[in-house]
Amino acid sequence: VRDELSVGVVGASGFTGRELCRLLLGHRRVGRILPAARSAEPFERRHRNLLGSGLQFVSAERLVEQARELDVVFFCTPAGEAMRLAGHFLDEGSAVIDLGADFRFPDPATYRAVYGVEHAAPHLLAQVVYGVPELARDAIRGARLVANPGCYVIAALLAVAPLIGDDGVDPGALVGIHAVNGTTGAGNTSRPELHHAAVANDMLPYSLEGHRHCPELELQLARLAGRTVRVDFNTAHGPFARGIYLQASVQLRRGDGVNRDVLLDRYKERYGAGHRGEHFVLVVDFPKTGGCNAKEYDVYPDMASVLGSNFCHLGVDYDAAHAVVRVVSVLDNLVKGAAGTAIQNMNLLFSFDESEGLRHYGL
Amino acid sequence: VRDELSVGVVGASGFTGRELCRLLLGHRRVGRILPAARSAEPFERRHRNLLGSGLQFVSAERLVEQARELDVVFFCTPAGEAMRLAGHFLDEGSAVIDLGADFRFPDPATYRAVYGVEHAAPHLLAQVVYGVPELARDAIRGARLVANPGCYVIAALLAVAPLIGDDGVDPGALVGIHAVNGTTGAGNTSRPELHHAAVANDMLPYSLEGHRHCPELELQLARLAGRTVRVDFNTAHGPFARGIYLQASVQLRRGDGVNRDVLLDRYKERYGAGHRGEHFVLVVDFPKTGGCNAKEYDVYPDMASVLGSNFCHLGVDYDAAHAVVRVVSVLDNLVKGAAGTAIQNMNLLFSFDESEGLRHYGL
Amino acid sequence: VRDELSVGVVGASGFTGRELCRLLLGHRRVGRILPAARSAEPFERRHRNLLGSGLQFVSAERLVEQARELDVVFFCTPAGEAMRLAGHFLDEGSAVIDLGADFRFPDPATYRAVYGVEHAAPHLLAQVVYGVPELARDAIRGARLVANPGCYVIAALLAVAPLIGDDGVDPGALVGIHAVNGTTGAGNTSRPELHHAAVANDMLPYSLEGHRHCPELELQLARLAGRTVRVDFNTAHGPFARGIYLQASVQLRRGDGVNRDVLLDRYKERYGAGHRGEHFVLVVDFPKTGGCNAKEYDVYPDMASVLGSNFCHLGVDYDAAHAVVRVVSVLDNLVKGAAGTAIQNMNLLFSFDESEGLRHYGL
Amino acid sequence: VRDELSVGVVGASGFTGRELCRLLLGHRRVGRILPAARSAEPFERRHRNLLGSGLQFVSAERLVEQARELDVVFFCTPAGEAMRLAGHFLDEGSAVIDLGADFRFPDPATYRAVYGVEHAAPHLLAQVVYGVPELARDAIRGARLVANPGCYVIAALLAVAPLIGDDGVDPGALVGIHAVNGTTGAGNTSRPELHHAAVANDMLPYSLEGHRHCPELELQLARLAGRTVRVDFNTAHGPFARGIYLQASVQLRRGDGVNRDVLLDRYKERYGAGHRGEHFVLVVDFPKTGGCNAKEYDVYPDMASVLGSNFCHLGVDYDAAHAVVRVVSVLDNLVKGAAGTAIQNMNLLFSFDESEGLRHYGL
Repeated sequence: VRDELSVGVVGASGFTGRELCRLLLGHRRVGRILPAARSAEPFERRHRNLLGSGLQFVSAERLVEQARELDVVFFCTPAGEAMRLAGHFLDEGSAVIDLGADFRFPDPATYRAVYGVEHAAPHLLAQVVYGVPELARDAIRGARLVANPGCYVIAALLAVAPLIGDDGVDPGALVGIHAVNGTTGAGNTSRPELHHAAVANDMLPYSLEGHRHCPELELQLARLAGRTVRVDFNTAHGPFARGIYLQASVQLRRGDGVNRDVLLDRYKERYGAGHRGEHFVLVVDFPKTGGCNAKEYDVYPDMASVLGSNFCHLGVDYDAAHAVVRVVSVLDNLVKGAAGTAIQNMNLLFSFDESEGLRHYGL
Repeated sequence: VRDELSVGVVGASGFTGRELCRLLLGHRRVGRILPAARSAEPFERRHRNLLGSGLQFVSAERLVEQARELDVVFFCTPAGEAMRLAGHFLDEGSAVIDLGADFRFPDPATYRAVYGVEHAAPHLLAQVVYGVPELARDAIRGARLVANPGCYVIAALLAVAPLIGDDGVDPGALVGIHAVNGTTGAGNTSRPELHHAAVANDMLPYSLEGHRHCPELELQLARLAGRTVRVDFNTAHGPFARGIYLQASVQLRRGDGVNRDVLLDRYKERYGAGHRGEHFVLVVDFPKTGGCNAKEYDVYPDMASVLGSNFCHLGVDYDAAHAVVRVVSVLDNLVKGAAGTAIQNMNLLFSFDESEGLRHYGL
Repeated sequence: VRDELSVGVVGASGFTGRELCRLLLGHRRVGRILPAARSAEPFERRHRNLLGSGLQFVSAERLVEQARELDVVFFCTPAGEAMRLAGHFLDEGSAVIDLGADFRFPDPATYRAVYGVEHAAPHLLAQVVYGVPELARDAIRGARLVANPGCYVIAALLAVAPLIGDDGVDPGALVGIHAVNGTTGAGNTSRPELHHAAVANDMLPYSLEGHRHCPELELQLARLAGRTVRVDFNTAHGPFARGIYLQASVQLRRGDGVNRDVLLDRYKERYGAGHRGEHFVLVVDFPKTGGCNAKEYDVYPDMASVLGSNFCHLGVDYDAAHAVVRVVSVLDNLVKGAAGTAIQNMNLLFSFDESEGLRHYGL
Repeated sequence: VRDELSVGVVGASGFTGRELCRLLLGHRRVGRILPAARSAEPFERRHRNLLGSGLQFVSAERLVEQARELDVVFFCTPAGEAMRLAGHFLDEGSAVIDLGADFRFPDPATYRAVYGVEHAAPHLLAQVVYGVPELARDAIRGARLVANPGCYVIAALLAVAPLIGDDGVDPGALVGIHAVNGTTGAGNTSRPELHHAAVANDMLPYSLEGHRHCPELELQLARLAGRTVRVDFNTAHGPFARGIYLQASVQLRRGDGVNRDVLLDRYKERYGAGHRGEHFVLVVDFPKTGGCNAKEYDVYPDMASVLGSNFCHLGVDYDAAHAVVRVVSVLDNLVKGAAGTAIQNMNLLFSFDESEGLRHYGL
């Protein structure tokens, strides 16, 4: 265990890079942060929430040169960049955590099919660990190269993991996933559709012909289920800056004996509760107190409650008339959906307390 | 045809009643509006957007007494109130348009099952016309008692009507409906979960054990399809005041020869285009111009663009990998989803131009 | 009086041009709309709220060629463009209404000082009428060239006009103007600071060293007051798409006998009330009913209530401890602050009913 | 110095109490938190962002009984409650920090004039320290009873402190203060004007006849200036959950030699910079790079950047034409405006590092 880590962040000018720097600044085992980006503006003008941090952008080239001094390098880059540089950092002794998509598929052919380009470092794929700590903690502990999951994918995996391998689930039906993401999820490129006046009272669907996160999710679900799982995957941006609201519909073969309480018990069994459970995955199990027709918003997870934090809140209900389990999964797309999970992975890699730097609650 | 109508509005203190009054004030064939409500505040203080209108609340009792002078009475009331009073108004010669739920089910047993109370006027149910003008124009023209559809239901019906009776649709699969409604859809009752600070950056799922609009939708879809149609029906409120963003997933048996353009043609055929088409149901058929991985928000309907108007914009895409048709349907929950369709129905009842009072575009 | 006008709109791709087209489409005396802009997109894809309108962009050059057929030409262009073309349209017989800044100063030296360029058509300035209908109705009726006021300026003028010429106002004190504008007021240029994620929970002050609308306002106030009036002028964008919330502080020499009711009477006297008053300027005079410490939001104007409409709502209160009159003025920056007033001016120019095309209430 | 503090929070069911608990949970020197409130709901259902915290509401009576075990008691209560209980806690040995208004005026007559009730504990007023750490650090260190400042007041004091005692300021002119507060600032009482649908696109002015924070501010400014200072004080809620955007206008007698850079230097001199400066008060001094007419939003403080944090960002500009200094001050109303400053005061009282528990950056 090192005392204080030196950390590089490639792609530090975007929303995810900013968030990673914000969280690293509050991590007690991190001594030095080198944010790399091509930016015409100084770091603190670009990221005004980090005013007073003293951080300054360096070039990616400088990180490459200083690789030997870096304990870990994070990539917050569009698909294509991490696979060009990761090998160098690994060779020089740094661990690598890629928040982008380059290492999420073990098979380079899948990568080509989904991202449209040839993989530049297929020889590295065998050593990659797919980094959902709650599903692969031990493997991550021994890794040097971690593929941080897609923001939608981690929200969906945590939502359906307790159900998906079960006999009762109808294998012929599509798992329905509908997710609404904040506008930070759209990236910080300026375009008319993302102007505040355009989005303020709007919903922005996109990629309805098929989203890149769908094959990633289906691959992970197949691992969990031990069989092919097919997903009806739908995404939109909503008029909020942060957060993913995801809702999953899982059809059962038969619903005998199933109800909300039974399902809640299963989720609490899977993720634990209190001090013996998962720190960051919490099941919302408040009892319904109204009559059958009362609208009880607060029996379901509340997206706003996790913003800024590394928590994922899960809730579940049961539509008996259709034998459909409905799961609600909420998290902050920039934290548990990206930078927070990346730091959780770093904590596992370096044998720190897994929640170090991530314990604060949502706003 | 009367020259100038006298119109009563029961339940005029809520969001829907306010919107109905707003639209009636701009209708050239409406001469007199009597908004009825129990309100401690004067009309213009309650509905400050209607400052200068000169409208004043009357009691529902006064409407009952003056029934004979009223050409049409609208109910913007919670379930239970319209069925007590509608018979009286009909007897006195007024037409009745119920924006609530009391007349949406032909079978009183269904009403009891869904709304939990006995129907108070089952003898009226036989004469009810379910009022989606685009699907039942001729029947509405001859009606005296119209059940205005639920806001989610009309958005969903217009979305899937062109597909649902088709051979190619998989009858074993659930039709997936996910809808996000503005907070006006939650009613204007004050409660902590609807405080601005609670909703501002949030999504509020509700009724995931089964929403009352689901049986209403399944009934109408069965009429269109000539067979049972089962729906995975999901709702939430989003952080915007108005609008419904609805997305439907319809699974095909086989997808041979299906693509976005084929589907768009089907929708345009169903709803027409230009002057010979439906005035208020428009198909968004902008071509995709980016590559396969470009995010093109503007090829799909834009909810903000219909706010304040009676338009429903429809868009469609095709997920070939899963043989799923995805439809996006957007409308203003208070206009096309309620008061606007009610006025469209009134226009049909009184043989006015169907778009009278409703021609303005969205903001 | 022409039966149906032919109307040109130069600069029709921006927020103001879009709004002008929206309102013109609902104007019964307008037969033909020619929106001119350089746009890579078709009109209905650029302005998706106007889907179904059938409008198509033409080039500004085509408008110039067809000037003789146009009854009126509106300019929704940045400073500098209207002054180059207005003379041509006037010569060809079109009336001109400039929603930009080119004709707001009678003295070309002031224009140069404020906008930093030489005025291109100083010979036209003598015939300009500054178009606030409520303050200059008769002059507008006889005009051919109207300078539509700045959005902040009209909100401020209507707010303080009833006070400003009064003996009781302290001439040594600055009039305090604080205005918050929606993000449509920032123009539709894409830039990182206007990304939805940047603005969503933010306030964006700007031009605190001096805003261009300040000299315009001071000039008009001097006309009303018959003396120099100096303004402490402050602006910001708020996290909403539309609307101006403006608050004015006017210090009195002495406050003897002044109170809220006295002030409300003065405003109602100035703008009238009911059918004999100004149609679009309404005074909010709801009585305070709570005790001295109750927060009564609804005794003041409500910005959201005027959105989409041509109304300006005014409210007033009195801080007796400081002898300060506080005025609240709210309007839709794109309607009463721009396109609506422009149409009101057109109605005056062509002797139409002044409220034609503008009677609808806010959402 | 105690190792781990036991902390009581009276009034823990509101927005401020929730925020205080959130911050205390991340404070390394706090061992035990007892949140007191009358609430029908369990703590974690009431404050869903604190799910997993294990906190549970106790009654205020229980805190009173256990006073001897409590190192410090915070009051997050409406005016009137802290003054009844503070004496007991002080007698039993607890320090008291009141986030409400009960101890903000040294003279009980002022309290009665502003809050309309007699002060219940005038004998305690002499020992109160008014708790703005940046202005009264040493006095706070020795205090047992701290009056936490009003949220608007601290934002205003930090904004104008560097100017207010200066010879160059015009003593005859009102200091103009305009502040926009998030809707958490309105309290969590449900009322129709605070329904999300009402506020979503709105601004809510209030108390324009005189706000209770104005006398508090004038008192503190008089202390700083050594003379009477009169304030034109204006407040509204904006459509965001958190944050205060405050803008001050300070008129100079003469503006010779004044410009933005000179003013920025004065602010940096007052609050320091880097490691020797104030940790939580930062001056935004990015240079203007555009021409005279460019809109440069990012040269001013950005409210969204401080949300969730204890920072106050200050910016300044100069309107030479009117000799007015404009200051922008932004902070999170619930953190630096309330709970964060309260903890900063606690840190001073117990000789902890002043930034303990408060070092995280804004979202």
